Amino acid sequence: MAHNALASWTDGPTKQALVDFITTAVSPGPGFIPVADRIAAFDNDGTLWSEQPLPPQFDFVFRRWSMEVEADPALAGRQPYKALIEHDRDFFAGLETQDPATVQAVLDAFSRTWAGSTPEEFDAEVTRWLETVRHPTLNVRYLGLVYRPMLELIKYLQANEFRVFVCSGGGRDFMRVFAEETWGIHKENVIGTAADFRYSDGRMVRSGGSLGGLDIGPGKPEHLFAQTGRLPVLAGGNADVDVEMLESAQFALLVNHDDGAREFEYTAGSGRAIERAVELGWTVVSIKNDWNTVFGPVGPG
Amino acid sequence: MAHNALASWTDGPTKQALVDFITTAVSPGPGFIPVADRIAAFDNDGTLWSEQPLPPQFDFVFRRWSMEVEADPALAGRQPYKALIEHDRDFFAGLETQDPATVQAVLDAFSRTWAGSTPEEFDAEVTRWLETVRHPTLNVRYLGLVYRPMLELIKYLQANEFRVFVCSGGGRDFMRVFAEETWGIHKENVIGTAADFRYSDGRMVRSGGSLGGLDIGPGKPEHLFAQTGRLPVLAGGNADVDVEMLESAQFALLVNHDDGAREFEYTAGSGRAIERAVELGWTVVSIKNDWNTVFGPVGPG
Repeated sequence: MAHNALASWTDGPTKQALVDFITTAVSPGPGFIPVADRIAAFDNDGTLWSEQPLPPQFDFVFRRWSMEVEADPALAGRQPYKALIEHDRDFFAGLETQDPATVQAVLDAFSRTWAGSTPEEFDAEVTRWLETVRHPTLNVRYLGLVYRPMLELIKYLQANEFRVFVCSGGGRDFMRVFAEETWGIHKENVIGTAADFRYSDGRMVRSGGSLGGLDIGPGKPEHLFAQTGRLPVLAGGNADVDVEMLESAQFALLVNHDDGAREFEYTAGSGRAIERAVELGWTVVSIKNDWNTVFGPVGPG
Repeated sequence: MAHNALASWTDGPTKQALVDFITTAVSPGPGFIPVADRIAAFDNDGTLWSEQPLPPQFDFVFRRWSMEVEADPALAGRQPYKALIEHDRDFFAGLETQDPATVQAVLDAFSRTWAGSTPEEFDAEVTRWLETVRHPTLNVRYLGLVYRPMLELIKYLQANEFRVFVCSGGGRDFMRVFAEETWGIHKENVIGTAADFRYSDGRMVRSGGSLGGLDIGPGKPEHLFAQTGRLPVLAGGNADVDVEMLESAQFALLVNHDDGAREFEYTAGSGRAIERAVELGWTVVSIKNDWNTVFGPVGPG
């Protein structure tokens, strides 16, 4: 391993399991993985950055939905606007457990909000939000909540000729705005729930619909396979909606949020994932014990 | 330029235009293109290999459809099986000009044929076909009909930190079987008309439906943007169904099939593309004059 490639990881069984898997994968002998098959995939919310009290993209979206309800108060009676007005955090946090019609209503609302806009317009709005809005309790910009150990892991995998993908329930185009600078991952390696775009008069414009379904649960390996033609050999996640993607990988990493002092301590939405980790022998990251540093960018080199 | 990187291209304005664009793109100064934006995209049928008398994948599919009609003669009365039985080449060659319902019927037939199969089963069938079937008139295996100058161009672009994608109306999963060995392009850089897969019991299985529409016409920039988050800076094609993709690029390359002696001579299906090439000043490849070698793999190095 390159000196200090995983400097923010405390020496111990978790770090060792990662290093062993990757070292074996690139070394001739049993466990060698051909370069073509070296696909790694990570969830984003709760895996690459903090997702409490809600995944950051909700903050971005809620600002627009609030304006929409102001302009059209009738919206306040229906979902997802109703949950927003009533500060019903559980509605959004447990979205994957809602009935399909409700999930579709949320997806439709997302898609409708930016209908007719170009990628440049949408990207500028995300950039403005990233540069100005702060997390409600931690008082830092959202990009300050990216986990440094995971950035190191991405870099370490790339140095070992893994192609690293992010596969998130969050918005594909939202993540693509900061993926390259923040994660060092090209836009084409970012997979997520996607708006539909049409090509017209020489430019792309959002149609107001969505392309494919929500990128959660079985949707994660489905989106990954559609995008890459493979299932991942290494996958990282933290929640129940990541279980299928983690099951589909040879090596699964589950981030356990057990550090209330430096980040957040919770198991809501990850009960099934933690069970499967025990049953299937996944490598579990204790933020408290395995990460000596939680937040911050990785230096050059 | 690396010595002989484009050895199968005859010196002249076409080769020079390519070299100039790529050299300028990677050199500081006006025309420099940041690495992140260096997306190149090529059509497949008629651009990377021969498409006469029909794109090779039709041969692969027709063998299965013939078996389906034998098993269920009632199919012979409806499209696309009817066109197959009647050897109606024009039906398939001009598919993009058919009404949407007919196009959908063909797409549905494609999808239905392999419903329930796994990627491994489908890939094995494509591999068997590639290894055993020969082109009806040229009497070589289909992979012998890949254009060596285009393979050199792909390699040259990759050496200049372009990420090269194939974006074809043909089947995504069909092309992914040979993309890595033949083109030197990872599966995730292959975009095409796509079957829908579901994740179930730890594996991917074809649902029998399709994902997104036909990857032709405006569908090409739409598929490219969905997959990569960008439009290409360089694009290559040969047919009317490539016009929108070519228009969306800074540098457009149009392959003109004018060499009846070594390949095929035809303009059917490319009239509008040739018009646009003149109007917009695209770089037109004359197979006869610009390629000193047409077929064959590129050597190492």
